[in-house]
Amino acid sequence: MAMGTKETIFSIEHAAIRFGPGALEDVGEEARTLGLTRVLLVTDARIRRLPFFETVRTSLHRAGVEAVVFDRTEVEPTDVSMLEAARAATEARVDGFISLGGGSVMDTAKAANLFSTWPAEFLSYVAAPLGESRAVPGPLKPHIACPTTFGTGAENTGIAIFDVTAAKVKTGIVSRRIRPTLGILDPTVLTHLPARVVAANGFDVLSHAMESFSAKPYTARQRPPLPSQRPMTQGANPYSAVPCLEAIRLTSRNLVAAVTEGDPEARSQLMFAGLLAGIGFGNSGCHLPHAMSYPVAKLVRSFRPEEWGEGKPLVPHGMAVAVNAPAALRWLARAAPERFAPIARALEGPGRDDHPGDTIAGVLLGLMRQTGIPVNLAQLGFDEKDIGTLAKGALEQKRLVENFPGELSHTDMEAIFREGLFQGESAS
Amino acid sequence: MAMGTKETIFSIEHAAIRFGPGALEDVGEEARTLGLTRVLLVTDARIRRLPFFETVRTSLHRAGVEAVVFDRTEVEPTDVSMLEAARAATEARVDGFISLGGGSVMDTAKAANLFSTWPAEFLSYVAAPLGESRAVPGPLKPHIACPTTFGTGAENTGIAIFDVTAAKVKTGIVSRRIRPTLGILDPTVLTHLPARVVAANGFDVLSHAMESFSAKPYTARQRPPLPSQRPMTQGANPYSAVPCLEAIRLTSRNLVAAVTEGDPEARSQLMFAGLLAGIGFGNSGCHLPHAMSYPVAKLVRSFRPEEWGEGKPLVPHGMAVAVNAPAALRWLARAAPERFAPIARALEGPGRDDHPGDTIAGVLLGLMRQTGIPVNLAQLGFDEKDIGTLAKGALEQKRLVENFPGELSHTDMEAIFREGLFQGESAS
Repeated sequence: MAMGTKETIFSIEHAAIRFGPGALEDVGEEARTLGLTRVLLVTDARIRRLPFFETVRTSLHRAGVEAVVFDRTEVEPTDVSMLEAARAATEARVDGFISLGGGSVMDTAKAANLFSTWPAEFLSYVAAPLGESRAVPGPLKPHIACPTTFGTGAENTGIAIFDVTAAKVKTGIVSRRIRPTLGILDPTVLTHLPARVVAANGFDVLSHAMESFSAKPYTARQRPPLPSQRPMTQGANPYSAVPCLEAIRLTSRNLVAAVTEGDPEARSQLMFAGLLAGIGFGNSGCHLPHAMSYPVAKLVRSFRPEEWGEGKPLVPHGMAVAVNAPAALRWLARAAPERFAPIARALEGPGRDDHPGDTIAGVLLGLMRQTGIPVNLAQLGFDEKDIGTLAKGALEQKRLVENFPGELSHTDMEAIFREGLFQGESAS
Repeated sequence: MAMGTKETIFSIEHAAIRFGPGALEDVGEEARTLGLTRVLLVTDARIRRLPFFETVRTSLHRAGVEAVVFDRTEVEPTDVSMLEAARAATEARVDGFISLGGGSVMDTAKAANLFSTWPAEFLSYVAAPLGESRAVPGPLKPHIACPTTFGTGAENTGIAIFDVTAAKVKTGIVSRRIRPTLGILDPTVLTHLPARVVAANGFDVLSHAMESFSAKPYTARQRPPLPSQRPMTQGANPYSAVPCLEAIRLTSRNLVAAVTEGDPEARSQLMFAGLLAGIGFGNSGCHLPHAMSYPVAKLVRSFRPEEWGEGKPLVPHGMAVAVNAPAALRWLARAAPERFAPIARALEGPGRDDHPGDTIAGVLLGLMRQTGIPVNLAQLGFDEKDIGTLAKGALEQKRLVENFPGELSHTDMEAIFREGLFQGESAS
């Protein structure tokens, strides 16, 4: 195991999954099979009022599994709300976790499991440079993740994302140990989702899959001295490529019907595509569009889509990713067309591969228009004066920058944001 | 959860995997990360003399993990040899298992783990009708499976196959609990494999993938009262389809170079395809060609390929599967061409889909001729008088019969075996 040699090995890791209508009715039995007797049921106040909360609680009760409910998850979780959940778990002396909600809920359950099982200062497990990136000392308690939306992939990743209140920055904890034990994906939960939420999440799925497929290859990294030091964001590899391409096919073919017609089968296909993309990015990692989405979400001044109700300015994650993806992927494809040609084919079928970046950007903008989400940064309220700050913010996303399939300077990054400022105004 | 309703839910389960040249050097560190201090290193006498046995032992030693070697695995394991391994584990008081070998070795380690962790009469966990099919009561100890060949998929399945000596019958233990924790696939082990072994295993991979893709859909089963009663052989589903089709593409494109040129990259691709097919059949299940292979292997009178050395008559598993696959898949495709058309496309690329069974059979026979393995039952020493006994034996494979994508009578089964008796004699 010589130092300084290139990586030759990739890893495959998954949560176990149950997928299908009615799967939430089995949560209790699945918990019992995992040996659980008393769980923290992590959710939020809104989901607690929806019918599938009772489905889950009844299922746990019937299986003889006690459930202590924690419904104070924040929509954008923070260190404070996550530690509150951890305290609730410690006080309730639970032997496992059930999360029922979106990415925020699932990530909160991951953190609650971590800090109640292996107590430590909050920043010790948080990714560098803000935190200490300390390794999680051992296995956590079983966690059954039940998404009530689709596309985050959080049921299958060892990543928890949150804001650190004091530092006013979004960061995360990244460890194989915090990956849920089991994900239960019941597509009947999606009937409640507003059309624009389906659209935003659909683009998140599409970008997870396109980014994970085209990420820097794992063989471009150095092989670390110990296998446990391999980054979870290991880069593109032959395994992650397989579900990514299928996720791209399924999403691009089902997105419009799922949004504009609310078609349940199309929505179920999107949930399945989200799972595949989650397997892809859980075993590879995202890069440029996701890195660009964080400063967009952070710097928003005035935009908030109607369907998200009253509140402070907000660019939903999927929209923040979508609006950056066309320019980002077109730029990257210019330098490495062969890596993007399979994505173009998965989106459009066999065709000419001379300019896959143009194909990809064109298909994405078309889908964005058909599903009624913003197509450029100007529509989100950004202008030329923001470009420098956005570029700086994107390049600060160290974990994602390391997964870029190519080097990008600050000037390059500005050019990419600038390309996205007014793109797609007229049909292209 | 009404009784008598059709299944709506499918499951996804995997072992964690490391794949790549040099991966065996990490066995010790991976064991240490899993918390192991003292393991039973299950192998066989032949592998113990190969260089990668020392790689594994040295790696364990460096990581401070004690290894007690058990090298008395039989090539076709029996209840007797498996219980001997279990006794060795109990006496050595190990906290985990490393298996280094082919399917027999990995399956022996699964059984040793099971019977040393949850002691019971041998037949209690064995599949009905011979055994009692009792559920494994709880989790087993960690097991790291290190294949020294490819294609069995045993690193990723909850199945152990063996002969029950007293009953003179091949059967198995099937439980999610016996699935290995981690599979370490190092393609450098394949350089030692004789060409014909690569060919036989390649056809096993191809058939795993084709059968798992075309199996009876999971939605055709009844939904069981409890999720833990869902069969591991759950039938074809959207998830298993994805790796299966990729495995078919990779195997059909790399098999000839891997066999006739010994090309290491082609062999590595076959090992990766074997992993994908194992993920496919571990989440779906095989059917007709595998069911037909068991009586062929059992009833062989005279055949034994040169590369397998001196010994009693033997049809290697991959050859027993391959020789039955063309007629079996052609027959099934006649009744459900739409289920076999994607397989034909994966083998050949886009084309006419009128008769996918003929395409599949033609490609398979062509690959069998190019890789120099027997193309029909006559070449294995069978004749018309054997047809009835073979048909009876195939229909006794209950677990596989339940996964057939269609009903087959004894007469049908005879007709399929008869079709395979002289197939492929002249170039078709």
